[in-house]
Amino acid sequence: MIANTPTPPYYAVIFTSLRTGINEEYLETALEMERLAALQPGYLGHESAREGTGITVSYWRDLESIKNWKKVAEHQTAQKKGRELWYSAYKTRICLVERDYGFNLSEI
Amino acid sequence: MIANTPTPPYYAVIFTSLRTGINEEYLETALEMERLAALQPGYLGHESAREGTGITVSYWRDLESIKNWKKVAEHQTAQKKGRELWYSAYKTRICLVERDYGFNLSEI
Repeated sequence: MIANTPTPPYYAVIFTSLRTGINEEYLETALEMERLAALQPGYLGHESAREGTGITVSYWRDLESIKNWKKVAEHQTAQKKGRELWYSAYKTRICLVERDYGFNLSEI
Repeated sequence: MIANTPTPPYYAVIFTSLRTGINEEYLETALEMERLAALQPGYLGHESAREGTGITVSYWRDLESIKNWKKVAEHQTAQKKGRELWYSAYKTRICLVERDYGFNLSEI
């Protein structure tokens, strides 16, 4: 789905990753992190797709919200396991969304 | 693959989309747009995945480069066909990448 974000400015965290072949606890943890992120103050939505490369974009009200989510204990444990087990490489980019536009057939 | 972008600041264009069932000329056009984008001044790389939702992130040196790419004739034709044929919804977000960090097993 396309995240229903408010009028900019807001923040995006682009997380691009390549997986190892190790699946142990991966799916459960990913779903749990989605659930927990959505409960954080300042969370605005997220979008995700994997096709070899995985791209997850989460949207946030401000930098403070992103910093707070990064510090949540369960998230820190998941990040550690990500480096040790699940990902062979990843890159996180913190971005200020300055402008957006779109189109939706179902709204026409 | 993960795009090998330079030290921030630079720009990201996050294009999130949902497809119609119409495939006519879609793949050829998508590949041609990737080829043409990579030839534009200021292009820094891109990442793409589709799993129901499609996410393509392209990276650019500055806003000027993004504006110039948007005006390229072949790209304008593709955008028009996107709205008329290939996508039921999309959202484009123009973002300033302020910070990035990552990890790559093959570089350790």
